[in-house]
Amino acid sequence: MARMVDLNCDMGESFGVYKLGFDEEVIKYINSANIACGFHAGDPHVMRETVRMAKKYNVAIGAHPSYPDLIGFGRRNIQATADEVKDYMVYQIGALRGFARTEDLELQHVKPHGSLYNMAVNDETLANSIVDSILEIDKNLILVALPGSKMEIAARQKGLKFACEVFADRAYNKDGTLVSRKIPGSVIHNIDEISRRVSQMVTEGTVVAITGEIISIKANTICVHGDTPGAVEIIGAIKERFAKDGIETVPMGKLL
Amino acid sequence: MARMVDLNCDMGESFGVYKLGFDEEVIKYINSANIACGFHAGDPHVMRETVRMAKKYNVAIGAHPSYPDLIGFGRRNIQATADEVKDYMVYQIGALRGFARTEDLELQHVKPHGSLYNMAVNDETLANSIVDSILEIDKNLILVALPGSKMEIAARQKGLKFACEVFADRAYNKDGTLVSRKIPGSVIHNIDEISRRVSQMVTEGTVVAITGEIISIKANTICVHGDTPGAVEIIGAIKERFAKDGIETVPMGKLL
Amino acid sequence: MARMVDLNCDMGESFGVYKLGFDEEVIKYINSANIACGFHAGDPHVMRETVRMAKKYNVAIGAHPSYPDLIGFGRRNIQATADEVKDYMVYQIGALRGFARTEDLELQHVKPHGSLYNMAVNDETLANSIVDSILEIDKNLILVALPGSKMEIAARQKGLKFACEVFADRAYNKDGTLVSRKIPGSVIHNIDEISRRVSQMVTEGTVVAITGEIISIKANTICVHGDTPGAVEIIGAIKERFAKDGIETVPMGKLL
Amino acid sequence: MARMVDLNCDMGESFGVYKLGFDEEVIKYINSANIACGFHAGDPHVMRETVRMAKKYNVAIGAHPSYPDLIGFGRRNIQATADEVKDYMVYQIGALRGFARTEDLELQHVKPHGSLYNMAVNDETLANSIVDSILEIDKNLILVALPGSKMEIAARQKGLKFACEVFADRAYNKDGTLVSRKIPGSVIHNIDEISRRVSQMVTEGTVVAITGEIISIKANTICVHGDTPGAVEIIGAIKERFAKDGIETVPMGKLL
Repeated sequence: MARMVDLNCDMGESFGVYKLGFDEEVIKYINSANIACGFHAGDPHVMRETVRMAKKYNVAIGAHPSYPDLIGFGRRNIQATADEVKDYMVYQIGALRGFARTEDLELQHVKPHGSLYNMAVNDETLANSIVDSILEIDKNLILVALPGSKMEIAARQKGLKFACEVFADRAYNKDGTLVSRKIPGSVIHNIDEISRRVSQMVTEGTVVAITGEIISIKANTICVHGDTPGAVEIIGAIKERFAKDGIETVPMGKLL
Repeated sequence: MARMVDLNCDMGESFGVYKLGFDEEVIKYINSANIACGFHAGDPHVMRETVRMAKKYNVAIGAHPSYPDLIGFGRRNIQATADEVKDYMVYQIGALRGFARTEDLELQHVKPHGSLYNMAVNDETLANSIVDSILEIDKNLILVALPGSKMEIAARQKGLKFACEVFADRAYNKDGTLVSRKIPGSVIHNIDEISRRVSQMVTEGTVVAITGEIISIKANTICVHGDTPGAVEIIGAIKERFAKDGIETVPMGKLL
Repeated sequence: MARMVDLNCDMGESFGVYKLGFDEEVIKYINSANIACGFHAGDPHVMRETVRMAKKYNVAIGAHPSYPDLIGFGRRNIQATADEVKDYMVYQIGALRGFARTEDLELQHVKPHGSLYNMAVNDETLANSIVDSILEIDKNLILVALPGSKMEIAARQKGLKFACEVFADRAYNKDGTLVSRKIPGSVIHNIDEISRRVSQMVTEGTVVAITGEIISIKANTICVHGDTPGAVEIIGAIKERFAKDGIETVPMGKLL
Repeated sequence: MARMVDLNCDMGESFGVYKLGFDEEVIKYINSANIACGFHAGDPHVMRETVRMAKKYNVAIGAHPSYPDLIGFGRRNIQATADEVKDYMVYQIGALRGFARTEDLELQHVKPHGSLYNMAVNDETLANSIVDSILEIDKNLILVALPGSKMEIAARQKGLKFACEVFADRAYNKDGTLVSRKIPGSVIHNIDEISRRVSQMVTEGTVVAITGEIISIKANTICVHGDTPGAVEIIGAIKERFAKDGIETVPMGKLL
């Protein structure tokens, strides 16, 4: 039986006249699109077009909600209360579900964006807000986040499906957390290394930490980037490697 | 058999620290709440609270979408394309449906706000955009607008349910259009006159035009205001009159 | 010689159709208006009207800049960089200076709003950003903030005029910091007590801490509120007490 | 004596993570930068960086104010009142003057953006609002707009300096108005033709209309674009042609 994994990518991050990302090129390679909902990026038109494009390429769709911070692209922490976060989540997921309806699609997943994701890795209250808000809007959605995070714990406790996300081009500490971007070697640029690593994550469930140890890692979905110059090349290399290693890529909804 | 009509009111138009309207008082008297969706007023928290309050008082809920113009409260025309309007509609209706889901409610109706409503009375393209966007998100929704407007025509042609809206405190021209607010006598302030007029609209299907003629008018739902000092008094007087005249008020969904 | 002090109040915090504060009533009693600049409250029209009103009542004007957070009224911390804060400051102060020009007025002061103020009390980097941004736009401006804060230290070091601000209705810890609003007794409601306290601050340079000690406090300007029901009554009582105690109120620019 | 003309270009239209235009390349060739002020594009950081860059390249700076419409890039008409437009103008010009102060620069000019510019060509009320708002903030500013427009008439009447703007790549009707972009031939793509035309405008004060007639045209400043792929090439060709034809380019402030 073939090993299976999902490839996810952030999409729909253009806004008005501003274009961001190579969505049209990248979408052909991925299985799940995380679609911006207007709070850090995206606008109603971009959301519609992205949902439509995902349908055309048979890619599953999910919401990519954020703190309300267009000027900061959702990358800055905002000291919002647990209730405010829940309200922001429902608003954004609801808006994207609206566009999904126009194409007779259902949302597959939710992946918090930027600072909201990063803060909720370690913040239990925030993680609970995220999980609760998803459950109150649709119990069948999958939460995509870092394995071992407070989000995984909250999702497991509350019965929300959870997809373990790994990063194709990021180095890991030996405790399974990501190496901070401030540290040299945190981002991997070598395409062969990237595709070898993700293949090992899927087939063996392990990765070599930045300190050299082989550590366990659970990969339901691999995050690839669509807004860097070499994006398409990297994803192509991963797919090639997967073909060779007998790894099939499918939307995470088929795995969970 | 009792005559029946709906009372609708714009709600959820507060924003952040800013409070607008006497929602808590007015909601006890009405049957359908038109809830702002964040484009001209309202924010995610206010939307949730308003949906919750409507559930508590057993009031049906609908979306009250607008052009994106918080600073102008949606009262200014924005030269948006037909597609832009459809995208704005889906986004806002979708967001409100998200909050409806959290309370296990379904939306009953959509009533465009302010300039969007006024422009679409006479603009066929805009009217079609509004009707199309509602149909693509939920075919069971009711469009609330001025009888005889391009919106009514588009709704009837495309098979969208339509509720004829009359205004409790506005004078009518003999062709059934509203008298412009710039003309003296356009807004009726006398509470007895208001309640007598709306009762006649419901029981006889007529109203006295500003020029004196008795004209036909179709009333499925009566718009009352919740943001003026005498709002509660006016609505109370209407309800009293209705009780005396054997008129029952129900959500428009039960009438159509 | 009469003792002199300034009374400052936040103003111009309405937005679009939303009205906040009793500006028209309060402005007759104060000497310095802190005018919102559109980031947490206020809009271009409100800014113009507030500047005009201040001129009419011969009240000095200052900018009341904030983090960009209309929905949160600037009360939430946003993890902005030092440079971002400087850019936000210059933008907002510049915009208000534009309106000051239309009335041939000069800005007198700058008082950071909400979370920006509170964070900069203890954050040296943020305090330096605030001081630097004021200096680069106008070296004659006065920074209004908590005595003993990092903002005072930065202002003194860099040669920016600084006005020590005290709060009419707030309790003080014995180290001169404000008692947290979460602690009972942090806000003083008794009008006599409020006016007696501020008079003592001005005439004796002391205040009784919440723990009973008499502590030193420097008061160049007293912050009064304009958005609470009893606002006008409180300010009136302070002014009466000042008249009795021979305290004259003048814009802070005349004191520094 | 050399003929002289100004080259102006819209700049600072990036926003947050979104980059628009080749400002760094184009700025070396132009004399006057029209800097976005945050309403249709630009943000406080981009404004500061653009002012700084203009100073470095000795390029004069002006404000490029717009209707508040980030999502529509200021290209849609908004039915704002005369007073609202004045308030928007003062806010934006004031904000940019703030950044000019930080670099010890003065603003040279104001050029309305997009729909605001286009509407004010024929709308006398709007044109007066624009002129009045500039005069109330700084009487020394120059208004840049279409010759023969209501803006020119209002500026001349009210004593505001006015720079006649011509477009390097646009065809003209025989009455001196621009050929609508919807009509074939409205935009000129041939680089030689573009540079020949602008040279003729400057040296002879004429241009060949789309219908073949030679018409008079007054050119104080030539608008070049910075956001199209061939932008730099076109501007370079114009500058080369100018060198050959003895045309000197200087900021418009030196011409008026």
